[in-house]
Amino acid sequence: MFLTRTEYDRGVNTFSPEGRLFQVEYAIEAIKLGSTAIGVKTKEGVVLAVEKRITSPLLEPSSVEKIMEIDDHIGCAMSGLIADARTLVEHARVETQNHRFSYGEPMTVESTTQALCDLALRFGEGDEESMSRPFGVSLLIAGHDENGPSLYYTDPSGTFWQCNAKAIGSGSEGADSSLQEQFNKDLSLEEAETIAVSILKQVMEEKVTPNNVDIAKVAPAYHIYTPQEVEAVISRL
Amino acid sequence: MFLTRTEYDRGVNTFSPEGRLFQVEYAIEAIKLGSTAIGVKTKEGVVLAVEKRITSPLLEPSSVEKIMEIDDHIGCAMSGLIADARTLVEHARVETQNHRFSYGEPMTVESTTQALCDLALRFGEGDEESMSRPFGVSLLIAGHDENGPSLYYTDPSGTFWQCNAKAIGSGSEGADSSLQEQFNKDLSLEEAETIAVSILKQVMEEKVTPNNVDIAKVAPAYHIYTPQEVEAVISRL
Amino acid sequence: MFLTRTEYDRGVNTFSPEGRLFQVEYAIEAIKLGSTAIGVKTKEGVVLAVEKRITSPLLEPSSVEKIMEIDDHIGCAMSGLIADARTLVEHARVETQNHRFSYGEPMTVESTTQALCDLALRFGEGDEESMSRPFGVSLLIAGHDENGPSLYYTDPSGTFWQCNAKAIGSGSEGADSSLQEQFNKDLSLEEAETIAVSILKQVMEEKVTPNNVDIAKVAPAYHIYTPQEVEAVISRL
Amino acid sequence: MFLTRTEYDRGVNTFSPEGRLFQVEYAIEAIKLGSTAIGVKTKEGVVLAVEKRITSPLLEPSSVEKIMEIDDHIGCAMSGLIADARTLVEHARVETQNHRFSYGEPMTVESTTQALCDLALRFGEGDEESMSRPFGVSLLIAGHDENGPSLYYTDPSGTFWQCNAKAIGSGSEGADSSLQEQFNKDLSLEEAETIAVSILKQVMEEKVTPNNVDIAKVAPAYHIYTPQEVEAVISRL
Amino acid sequence: MFLTRTEYDRGVNTFSPEGRLFQVEYAIEAIKLGSTAIGVKTKEGVVLAVEKRITSPLLEPSSVEKIMEIDDHIGCAMSGLIADARTLVEHARVETQNHRFSYGEPMTVESTTQALCDLALRFGEGDEESMSRPFGVSLLIAGHDENGPSLYYTDPSGTFWQCNAKAIGSGSEGADSSLQEQFNKDLSLEEAETIAVSILKQVMEEKVTPNNVDIAKVAPAYHIYTPQEVEAVISRL
Amino acid sequence: MFLTRTEYDRGVNTFSPEGRLFQVEYAIEAIKLGSTAIGVKTKEGVVLAVEKRITSPLLEPSSVEKIMEIDDHIGCAMSGLIADARTLVEHARVETQNHRFSYGEPMTVESTTQALCDLALRFGEGDEESMSRPFGVSLLIAGHDENGPSLYYTDPSGTFWQCNAKAIGSGSEGADSSLQEQFNKDLSLEEAETIAVSILKQVMEEKVTPNNVDIAKVAPAYHIYTPQEVEAVISRL
Amino acid sequence: MFLTRTEYDRGVNTFSPEGRLFQVEYAIEAIKLGSTAIGVKTKEGVVLAVEKRITSPLLEPSSVEKIMEIDDHIGCAMSGLIADARTLVEHARVETQNHRFSYGEPMTVESTTQALCDLALRFGEGDEESMSRPFGVSLLIAGHDENGPSLYYTDPSGTFWQCNAKAIGSGSEGADSSLQEQFNKDLSLEEAETIAVSILKQVMEEKVTPNNVDIAKVAPAYHIYTPQEVEAVISRL
Repeated sequence: MFLTRTEYDRGVNTFSPEGRLFQVEYAIEAIKLGSTAIGVKTKEGVVLAVEKRITSPLLEPSSVEKIMEIDDHIGCAMSGLIADARTLVEHARVETQNHRFSYGEPMTVESTTQALCDLALRFGEGDEESMSRPFGVSLLIAGHDENGPSLYYTDPSGTFWQCNAKAIGSGSEGADSSLQEQFNKDLSLEEAETIAVSILKQVMEEKVTPNNVDIAKVAPAYHIYTPQEVEAVISRL
Repeated sequence: MFLTRTEYDRGVNTFSPEGRLFQVEYAIEAIKLGSTAIGVKTKEGVVLAVEKRITSPLLEPSSVEKIMEIDDHIGCAMSGLIADARTLVEHARVETQNHRFSYGEPMTVESTTQALCDLALRFGEGDEESMSRPFGVSLLIAGHDENGPSLYYTDPSGTFWQCNAKAIGSGSEGADSSLQEQFNKDLSLEEAETIAVSILKQVMEEKVTPNNVDIAKVAPAYHIYTPQEVEAVISRL
Repeated sequence: MFLTRTEYDRGVNTFSPEGRLFQVEYAIEAIKLGSTAIGVKTKEGVVLAVEKRITSPLLEPSSVEKIMEIDDHIGCAMSGLIADARTLVEHARVETQNHRFSYGEPMTVESTTQALCDLALRFGEGDEESMSRPFGVSLLIAGHDENGPSLYYTDPSGTFWQCNAKAIGSGSEGADSSLQEQFNKDLSLEEAETIAVSILKQVMEEKVTPNNVDIAKVAPAYHIYTPQEVEAVISRL
Repeated sequence: MFLTRTEYDRGVNTFSPEGRLFQVEYAIEAIKLGSTAIGVKTKEGVVLAVEKRITSPLLEPSSVEKIMEIDDHIGCAMSGLIADARTLVEHARVETQNHRFSYGEPMTVESTTQALCDLALRFGEGDEESMSRPFGVSLLIAGHDENGPSLYYTDPSGTFWQCNAKAIGSGSEGADSSLQEQFNKDLSLEEAETIAVSILKQVMEEKVTPNNVDIAKVAPAYHIYTPQEVEAVISRL
Repeated sequence: MFLTRTEYDRGVNTFSPEGRLFQVEYAIEAIKLGSTAIGVKTKEGVVLAVEKRITSPLLEPSSVEKIMEIDDHIGCAMSGLIADARTLVEHARVETQNHRFSYGEPMTVESTTQALCDLALRFGEGDEESMSRPFGVSLLIAGHDENGPSLYYTDPSGTFWQCNAKAIGSGSEGADSSLQEQFNKDLSLEEAETIAVSILKQVMEEKVTPNNVDIAKVAPAYHIYTPQEVEAVISRL
Repeated sequence: MFLTRTEYDRGVNTFSPEGRLFQVEYAIEAIKLGSTAIGVKTKEGVVLAVEKRITSPLLEPSSVEKIMEIDDHIGCAMSGLIADARTLVEHARVETQNHRFSYGEPMTVESTTQALCDLALRFGEGDEESMSRPFGVSLLIAGHDENGPSLYYTDPSGTFWQCNAKAIGSGSEGADSSLQEQFNKDLSLEEAETIAVSILKQVMEEKVTPNNVDIAKVAPAYHIYTPQEVEAVISRL
Repeated sequence: MFLTRTEYDRGVNTFSPEGRLFQVEYAIEAIKLGSTAIGVKTKEGVVLAVEKRITSPLLEPSSVEKIMEIDDHIGCAMSGLIADARTLVEHARVETQNHRFSYGEPMTVESTTQALCDLALRFGEGDEESMSRPFGVSLLIAGHDENGPSLYYTDPSGTFWQCNAKAIGSGSEGADSSLQEQFNKDLSLEEAETIAVSILKQVMEEKVTPNNVDIAKVAPAYHIYTPQEVEAVISRL
């Protein structure tokens, strides 16, 4: 079994005899090593919350960006290789700006997600925009458009799903179970904030502080919480 | 025997001594892991029905799209890698739009299927539109044109066949047998709906609900059923 | 011996120490797995007859095309990978149309065959029109031009021969022997039809019907037989 | 020894430690499997004679072309892979036509031979005109220009020599010995015909007939013999 | 375990089964062999100090540049392969000049860092600007823009972090511990100089002199210290 | 030792751990199998003499060209792969013609040699003019320009040296010793002819005749000797 | 250990697990086989002296160029593969000429050195100017510009250092020790000549003569010594 595997995963984008794409599966492993991120959708908007791993007290916490704005009405949380995520986000920013310029209206959240996944799917093909390996990152994309709030989850294979709530990263298994227990469609945005951060608190190994947690919402505009606003959410737990 | 195989399947598009293309065969394996989809052709139009695997209650069932519109008169159901299918469908949408623009009339269903298969055949050739591996997806393409309703089935080798009824995905073997027993050329569209969903029900491991089944018809225009319409079909079983 | 082989057939287009091209030989193996096709040349025109393998009663027999028109005066029967054959036929169609447009007259059958073989020969060279592996298909090309009727046979190496009669595919060995016994230069077209279908009947494992046999003639124009016309030939056996 | 070889011949165009190019040597092996061809130069012109292997009585002997015209004043006989030879001959035809168009006079036989060998030498270099492996064919190029009649011999390495008489293919060893015995500079064209065909007869395993032998001369124009003319030569033996 | 590794690190940019990128990890090893560099941010500006390894008394100490100016308001210290660092710095210089030319204002420190990391991330992709392997260098980027002073740290993966103080190179482990003990946000620039050089002194194996230490500050303009200024700092220890 | 070698010589242009380029060394081996060529420089001009291996009495000796003209004032003798040499000579002819056209004066012998060596050095780089392996040929380039007569020697590495006298090919070792004994700067051209041919005679295994030796001089124009002129030199021995 | 190495040095430009670039290290080995070259900087200018290995008395000593002019004010001495050095020097000559043309002033010595090293660094990247392997050569670049005289040393990694004195090639270890003993900043140019040649004499295995030593100076213009001037230096020893 083991030897068979090594035969197939040398080609970056090749099927194994069982119909599997190993490089994509290995990239998904990279995400299991990443910090945890959680998204929760409510009728009022979407909340994103992420764990920040501050490996040294000398690091500037605000520079460990794991939630980024894509456009006024779209933000995303990430887990995995941060440099890869920045490339995807930068690509999405260009796409949404081009869309606004060409059509005079914001790009829908689904189209933006599709554009990100198109780039992710085409790894190993040698054209200018694509990478020579899968992007080692998962994203939770929160947005608000003519269809109301929405939350998308993408993986390194270039596949995406729409979710009501989702966790990614090293603590995602436990966090997803907690989300299934606590989520309902009538949550207020404030309740969603509380749930997201309380679940993050369960999976993190240290005390939750404004220094090691970031929160953002899209409701309907993207807003990243100030340390005071994060502190306020934490104090509600 | 085993060693011989590993010698040949490293090259993405190379014949084995027995005249086989292993990467294509492995991509076909990927489809055997996919959810089941069924198509049935009648004189009134074509019905497509698919199983949706909702792996988490937090997923938005409507975002797990396994039936997609290609043009007003063509839709398709898919089994295998969804991201690959989206690329093929997007390619077909551009082709049919270009055809309408250039010739002022809809593209025939066969030409659309041929265009999809041309792209699928050319994997591993390094040009801009093709993939570096086979597309890991099978499609059931339902359409209606000047020749009346038609149903096509494509596989990862870029081959296609016209069918009266066909199942793809993990439950395709049993579903195909049931289709052969129950199909006849004089089925009404309503009977076809009932047959497709009742066969899906046999191969799925859980209860059939509007959440885990999608239905569409092309008769003569593409229409994806609302949850109420799906419910109505299920209640007829 | 065995090990030597595996050294050479990894490169798609490389000579072995004995001066052999293994990838081409393996592609020829792919044809030995294909359905049988037969061509017979008479003074009145050329007859093509093919076995169609209808693997499921749900398949539309008319969509399993193993005889295709290239131009008004040229048709071909195929054995091997159908998707590869379609690419070659599409290439030949473009070539013959271009020739008519540029020179105001039909392309000769030999030039058309040469154009097909040029494409087949250039596999593995990375330019836009060629494939990354040999085309896994043999063709029987029937045509009628200023030199009268002619029948060509091509193989995956890009070589072609002119024949009086020829069989390709899994039953070709037995069929070729029968053709040598029964062929003579004074056959009428009707006798050629009878011989072709009676030999197909010998090599096929099932009863010959309009559903599993296709017949076409170029005499001097390409014509694919209707089920009634096929039935008429069968009834003469 | 054996292992060393396999290390070097994977690269299509790489020196072995002994300074050898194995892919070229293997291509030369391909020619040793080919049919025999003979060329004889006289003061009156050059004679080419080839064995045709008619593997089936259903093959059209005239379509097994092993002697081809390059230009009015140049023809060639070939042994090895016929599809490769056709590519070289087609290249030479374009070169000689371009030369006539640009300079208003025929290309010399040596320049034509050099143009063929330039293409043969550049295999494995990935540009558009060259092959990804050596051309598996040897040519005997007969021509007549301002320097009178000439006969050139080319091999897969892209090297060429001018000869008075030369045999290539599976029977070349014996045929070359016979040529050395029988050739002298004062042969008439008729004597050269007789010598060429009588030597072919020695190395062929079957009776010599107009069906399995082709003869051509360049004296000073290219002329391929009719079956009657071939018969006349045979009857002189 | 060891053998598994060798399977994956041949591809320059490929995930291992555990989701790791070995070539990037090996490039990080290259930096652990490099000389130590230290950066300290204060409210007045940022101080950079580096060890220079003068391997021969015949080397011109001033030509061993391990601190380089990127723009008036940005400088960087480096550890690892100096030729790689020069390529990155040259790229950043072009980017900042282009930005000034296009927008009439200096590029922000973060944008400059992002531009450097974009180049670092794209190794192994064959386009003109990128390298065929990871850049074997870490940078400490000190700058001053509309947001005040800032210090960034980049690694070969193309990831960057904002820091208050950071050490890179062979002595970075010990130096980072010392920095954590001695750093506070109210340091004056002069105190930062003293801390940086005293920590360098601890990790270097020889006496600290103006010949083997370079110091620069960005406060708010880039300034590299003269030997006299370096001497003055050393004398304060 | 042996295994190490095979690791490195697969890459056409890669250093071994000892700093060697094996493909170049193997190409040099190819020359040791070649026929012997000798060049001798005098104040009056340069003499080139080569052994011609006439493997069959049916070969036209004049077509075994081992001395070729590059321009009026430059000629070269070669040993190794003749097809490779022809490519280099053709390149040099284009360069010297371009130089005459652009500057209205002949190219110097050194510039011509440099142009040849530039092409030889760039093997394995995939651009249009270069080969995918080293050129397996050495040249002796004789010329006469504003600096008087000169003789250059090139090898497959793209290196060149100016010589007073030099032998290349299978007999070069013995011939070089003899040249060192017999050469002096005051030789007349006639004495140089005698020395060159008498040394060739020593290293050749057969009798020296105008059929198996070619002689040329550049004094100051290139002139290839007629059989009578060669006979005259031989008769002086 | 050994096996690990062979895994990593096949890729021309890949890090080993210890962060090393083996192909660059092997190219450095090539230089250790080269002839010795020495550079010494004084206030009056820079002296370069090189050993010339005249392997045969028939070689023209003046054609073994190991010191070459780059521009009026820059020259360089080389050790390693001469053909590689010529490519680098030719590149530098074009750069300095372009600079003069564009800016109307000579290029500085450092910029010229940087341009050379940029080319050296980019090996293995497949673009038109770069090599497919590291350049197997070290250079001592002597120049004189607005900053006075300067001496740079480059290695195959594309790194450069400014030096007061430096030796490269097979005798560099001993020569560097002697230079450290004898160098001081107040040397006159004449003393530098004497030191350079006397050290060369120590490391060479034969008597020093104008035939096997070349000397050049940049003071402030490039000048290569005549045999008489070299003799004069030797006589001072």
